[in-house]
Amino acid sequence: MRDLLSSIKSPDILKNASDEELVYLAENIRKFLLNNVSKTGGHLASNLGIVELTLAIHSVFDSPYDHIIWDVGHQAYVHKILTGRKHLFHTLRKHNGLSGFPKRSESKHDCFETGHSSTSISAALGIAKARDLKGKKNSVIAVIGDGALTGGMAFEALNHAGHANTDLIVILNDNEMSISQNVGGISRYLNRLRTDPKYFKVKDDVEYILNKIPAVGKAMYKTAEKAKDSLKYFLVPGIIFEELGFTYIGPVNGHDIKELKVVLQRAKNIKGPVFIHVITKKGKGYKYAEKNPDKFHGIGPFDIESGKLIKSGNKRESYSSIFGKTLVNLAKEDLRIVAITAAMPSGTGLNDFASIYPDRFFDVGIAEQHAVTFSAGLASNGLKPVFAVYSTFLQRAYDQVVHDVCLQNLPVVFCIDRSGLVGNDGETHHGVFDISYLTHIPNITIMAPKDGTELIEMLKYAVKLNSPVAIRYPRGESDDFTFISDNYCIEDRKAEVLLSGKDVCIIAFGKMVRTAYEAAKRLKSKNIHCTVINARFAKPLDEKTILEECSDIKNIITLEDNVVKGGFGSEILALLCKSKKNDKNIKILGLPDKFVEHGDTEELMRYYNLDVYSVIEHIKEMIS
Amino acid sequence: MRDLLSSIKSPDILKNASDEELVYLAENIRKFLLNNVSKTGGHLASNLGIVELTLAIHSVFDSPYDHIIWDVGHQAYVHKILTGRKHLFHTLRKHNGLSGFPKRSESKHDCFETGHSSTSISAALGIAKARDLKGKKNSVIAVIGDGALTGGMAFEALNHAGHANTDLIVILNDNEMSISQNVGGISRYLNRLRTDPKYFKVKDDVEYILNKIPAVGKAMYKTAEKAKDSLKYFLVPGIIFEELGFTYIGPVNGHDIKELKVVLQRAKNIKGPVFIHVITKKGKGYKYAEKNPDKFHGIGPFDIESGKLIKSGNKRESYSSIFGKTLVNLAKEDLRIVAITAAMPSGTGLNDFASIYPDRFFDVGIAEQHAVTFSAGLASNGLKPVFAVYSTFLQRAYDQVVHDVCLQNLPVVFCIDRSGLVGNDGETHHGVFDISYLTHIPNITIMAPKDGTELIEMLKYAVKLNSPVAIRYPRGESDDFTFISDNYCIEDRKAEVLLSGKDVCIIAFGKMVRTAYEAAKRLKSKNIHCTVINARFAKPLDEKTILEECSDIKNIITLEDNVVKGGFGSEILALLCKSKKNDKNIKILGLPDKFVEHGDTEELMRYYNLDVYSVIEHIKEMIS
Repeated sequence: MRDLLSSIKSPDILKNASDEELVYLAENIRKFLLNNVSKTGGHLASNLGIVELTLAIHSVFDSPYDHIIWDVGHQAYVHKILTGRKHLFHTLRKHNGLSGFPKRSESKHDCFETGHSSTSISAALGIAKARDLKGKKNSVIAVIGDGALTGGMAFEALNHAGHANTDLIVILNDNEMSISQNVGGISRYLNRLRTDPKYFKVKDDVEYILNKIPAVGKAMYKTAEKAKDSLKYFLVPGIIFEELGFTYIGPVNGHDIKELKVVLQRAKNIKGPVFIHVITKKGKGYKYAEKNPDKFHGIGPFDIESGKLIKSGNKRESYSSIFGKTLVNLAKEDLRIVAITAAMPSGTGLNDFASIYPDRFFDVGIAEQHAVTFSAGLASNGLKPVFAVYSTFLQRAYDQVVHDVCLQNLPVVFCIDRSGLVGNDGETHHGVFDISYLTHIPNITIMAPKDGTELIEMLKYAVKLNSPVAIRYPRGESDDFTFISDNYCIEDRKAEVLLSGKDVCIIAFGKMVRTAYEAAKRLKSKNIHCTVINARFAKPLDEKTILEECSDIKNIITLEDNVVKGGFGSEILALLCKSKKNDKNIKILGLPDKFVEHGDTEELMRYYNLDVYSVIEHIKEMIS
Repeated sequence: MRDLLSSIKSPDILKNASDEELVYLAENIRKFLLNNVSKTGGHLASNLGIVELTLAIHSVFDSPYDHIIWDVGHQAYVHKILTGRKHLFHTLRKHNGLSGFPKRSESKHDCFETGHSSTSISAALGIAKARDLKGKKNSVIAVIGDGALTGGMAFEALNHAGHANTDLIVILNDNEMSISQNVGGISRYLNRLRTDPKYFKVKDDVEYILNKIPAVGKAMYKTAEKAKDSLKYFLVPGIIFEELGFTYIGPVNGHDIKELKVVLQRAKNIKGPVFIHVITKKGKGYKYAEKNPDKFHGIGPFDIESGKLIKSGNKRESYSSIFGKTLVNLAKEDLRIVAITAAMPSGTGLNDFASIYPDRFFDVGIAEQHAVTFSAGLASNGLKPVFAVYSTFLQRAYDQVVHDVCLQNLPVVFCIDRSGLVGNDGETHHGVFDISYLTHIPNITIMAPKDGTELIEMLKYAVKLNSPVAIRYPRGESDDFTFISDNYCIEDRKAEVLLSGKDVCIIAFGKMVRTAYEAAKRLKSKNIHCTVINARFAKPLDEKTILEECSDIKNIITLEDNVVKGGFGSEILALLCKSKKNDKNIKILGLPDKFVEHGDTEELMRYYNLDVYSVIEHIKEMIS
């Protein structure tokens, strides 16, 4: 048997491979994935689950002539291996290394970039329509998970595609999971399709009839069509997709390459939109990942034998964990507190809350828009909803934050996790826009804690406040300023002056308070004296403290891990201007006006001149 | 027969009204609506269509004990009449008058505010869950149109509600329309439900079986349930909604009050989520509106007899119309140009394009998220998509603009109509955030024309540019600066200096250039000399021109019809700061950090100190 993996440079080699060779290749790819991801970290379980499907797709279709769009995209590792990027896997998700998501700059086989959920059918339909207008004939394939299917825009796209009169193949990679267990009506529906043996039986019958149709000639066609129609309601599985205008095929065993190839070949020849329902097992072939796909969804380096994470030193508790614990405590006292997640109970730290207060916990699926307006509904009827969400995913619900929460001034608390740079997931996942997309919305209060204790206090304050609040905090371990900070009172909505000095005033927000503080300490030894303000609030700014502290200092620096445009610093600048204190040396530090690539967070902060050393240099330059 | 309309203060009076009295009331309400809206303007057709349904809802349910949420909300006039606001209809949509949408501040019967589409099921589910947790028993009813049902978040909510284990009534007001004809798979599906007589027949059969169930006793129950289940696929209409977990009832004649009351009463007693499919006719009872519901969707004052708009003087061509014509012309020469709308072909000026280039025109339904990513797909495969959309509705697709268009730097053109204040539709419809939610996104170019000619040139430039572009322009008639402006070249990405003066530099964006110009002209007579810059670009700013012009002027004013926070002015301020020219007297004028209410646009501009007179006062104060 040929070892296809060792030499693979392009998917062409799959075209004349035997099914046995493909099965062997699948086995080797799993080993390769395990060996590599256990060292670099990355998305494991979803890639283990999609090995055979990816092989079958690349066997039947001709990429890049045919276009393949990977929804979310973290399951595209196998695709990357098959399209000449195997040798780069040791650099996976490192700065300047292989991206964990499809990237057009990496390969002609990555025709559309993804990262957020539920975009693939829209993109594929656009690509298909462009193909039609250009008079081309290639296939366009969207591969979407059952979790992503709960995102509203996937439905918008299905609704359009079903009657857009174009050839399009949507492959549902159904593993019964989002990152956690999948939820909702569609999920249960898919589950019934999967498990009801009646469906499999009648599928064969209907197939038989369908296959007969071309043979019966035109005269019989109408009768057959009619029979098909009336049978359909009784017999055809996937009626929802059929009703939307798709030809439904399935369910198909997603680990049987031979069957997959037959089905895909058939789909390739069907006119109009086709929906293929493929059943896969997340984590397939690695027992720990099969058993615990949530843990192995996105994972750091781990030991293959034991499935245990390789821990790197003692770490402080994460902000997510502090948030989760605090909310559990607060919910004990205030029965109005409820928690909402969009398919991220574990990542946002809500697992404990979910098990302690199951009736007060709502996982709405990958559906951030609904999550926000659902929260608004809860709040309008007297509850205190806390929506825990990653910064980058709240982008999906910008309009709902404006229109449903803030316009009605409803007390919804947004706990915005993964704000700032998130590191290895890169461009699509950094939370560097939230200050900019929230600050201009009326009625909202925006806070960021300098450390874990402050997060606790901010959350206590937020659930008491009778209006919309956002608290943003970064991925990973919390900071600790209790050695110097003696005032954690948030209710007075004040900024905190951590250090006083006459040369420079550094106004920092959230995690950047640490950077400001360390820079100031080191500058002191060079006889440069800094005031360090922990702003706490980006909106409303504590104008009084900031203006008082700035009044006699010529040099002002603002510091944030958000893009500079429309961010915290520009609010400070506007305040100084409004107060006619803009006659100063003002520097606004934050992320530049570009999409920040993937890489280790600290490395990226250095790269973008936002680490302690760079801030010191900025200040020195300012003063000189 | 009692004349209920003349005395109605609350819906209580409906509870003991006879069906005949309700029919008579419906007739009188239609007359009242026609008489009033023909004078004030407003949303007519949708309200005429929902008279009986609203009467039936308020007959069967007890508002405000029961919660009614009106999706979009422009169809809530009848609800307003029934809940004590009839006497305010002469002030409809005027500043400080009755809002055209539900407003919690107006009435305890408006439990949740709406304006944008597809939010009602999410809100209702939140309200229902809060009710459960509070141990209450009231009904919660969402009334949603078939157009709004194509919005993805409605599906997200259905997906959640279908299995959220709570009592909830969703009423589909199916009139086969968004503002224009409805599109997509769901629409065709609903159409089949409406028109296939088989459905009506089998509905009766199933009703019969369903009604028997309570009678047959517990022993028989399981058998009946089983029979029901296996019958369902063959017999029950609304299988999509049933599959999602709802009990489907329908279709029901939405103009038969008696039938509606029976159905609603039944729904009130069903456990779990219920989906009632009501068929209505948009514009019902007024022949012109029935025939042309699109025109009578939102309309200005008109003559009842002739159905003709009462025109107010000669007006210049609207920006929407100029946009539409220009795009038709450009599309002749460049076959890659395609146009996309989210259910707004008429409002955005795309009707001609749609009829001339049907294959290159895409109405995707009320689905802005899909529209943007679909456009990204088209662009990624070599086309030049132009998405024409209202500023406030593009908010729905903020994440898609970031993640699918700008991250990949794809040449999608956003033609953002209704930017700035839109007037009578008010808070939910003003386009006053777009500069703030777009400027911080990398790779995008943002322009606004000072007049119609400039819009044409900007559009020509935009479709040539190989990266994302947004052009924002206001509702209504275009301006004309050809009498003074002799350079309409956009390609050099320059700002335009319209007037030169040494005392003040006014930097204006878009329609505010007119205000700046008029203010400058009048100030000249007072011997105050202004430079007036038409910025043209909010991103990237023409830094060179702006800095050169500002360099010797002490007083700088920026002018925009966007909120000040994160807006055009704050970009100018950041530029001055970056260039160390912030040592000036700088004033940033724009809309305040609050939601702007409804009212005549010019009146609102005066109210918020953004009219010519106010700008003059600002400048005088600055100089004094």
